[in-house]
Amino acid sequence: MDVKSYLSGYADGEGCFCVSFNKSRRHILGWEIRPSFSVSQNRDRAQVLEMFQEHFGCGTIRPDRSDQTLKYEVRSVDDLVERVIPHFEKYPFLSDKEQDFKKFATICRLMCEGRHRTREGFNQIVDLAFAMNPSGARKYAKGEIKL
Amino acid sequence: MDVKSYLSGYADGEGCFCVSFNKSRRHILGWEIRPSFSVSQNRDRAQVLEMFQEHFGCGTIRPDRSDQTLKYEVRSVDDLVERVIPHFEKYPFLSDKEQDFKKFATICRLMCEGRHRTREGFNQIVDLAFAMNPSGARKYAKGEIKL
Repeated sequence: MDVKSYLSGYADGEGCFCVSFNKSRRHILGWEIRPSFSVSQNRDRAQVLEMFQEHFGCGTIRPDRSDQTLKYEVRSVDDLVERVIPHFEKYPFLSDKEQDFKKFATICRLMCEGRHRTREGFNQIVDLAFAMNPSGARKYAKGEIKL
Repeated sequence: MDVKSYLSGYADGEGCFCVSFNKSRRHILGWEIRPSFSVSQNRDRAQVLEMFQEHFGCGTIRPDRSDQTLKYEVRSVDDLVERVIPHFEKYPFLSDKEQDFKKFATICRLMCEGRHRTREGFNQIVDLAFAMNPSGARKYAKGEIKL
């Protein structure tokens, strides 16, 4: 039994790579870009979420506002680039989720390099994010965000 | 990367062990017991279901009646006992799903031995099935089934 492969399999079904955009006066281009990796689970069986937290050594577990589940979530771009993304590159998804993951990894690395603070990098990130499988409703349309 | 561990991780989140009971004149005690292992997936990404089918060498993939998903399902008790159960014993669940799985394995093995055709074995199976985490609504209450 290989726990790292198990976690990738679990995340293939239950994990979510998400990049959201929020208007922000604090950010130079007027938008905050927030990438996250999350996994949800019924409250009565949080074991696998704790395994993710222990394995990655980062992220939080908390009740999801929307329903009776717990959610493990990593939002720190540094943690995503240094801990989460290398795991899924070594133990890759065996479904189409791999395509979303690759776009997500590119976005996080562009952000690590500060490219999201340039118009060109920002627009590249928007294009990549909107090419990902949407996980739930988007607050803004692509045309509203691109600069 | 270990695909077998990956499949167990995937099944921890998305798999379902189910034992249903249907009234049947063809069965000696008046009830048909139907155990099944199933995994669902959005129609646009059936890859992991095909991996389950290939790895187990049994089961069917077909559209789920209730929604826009595909479902991989193994219903044959022989296939469950010879192919599915040994996999999950070698690559066990790391969550509480393991408890359900053990009850499911006991039920399938009792059926393989023909014990479901005795009143004692039948009642043992009913008790085990109703101690499992219910996956969806049950058609009959436990008291309606026990002999």
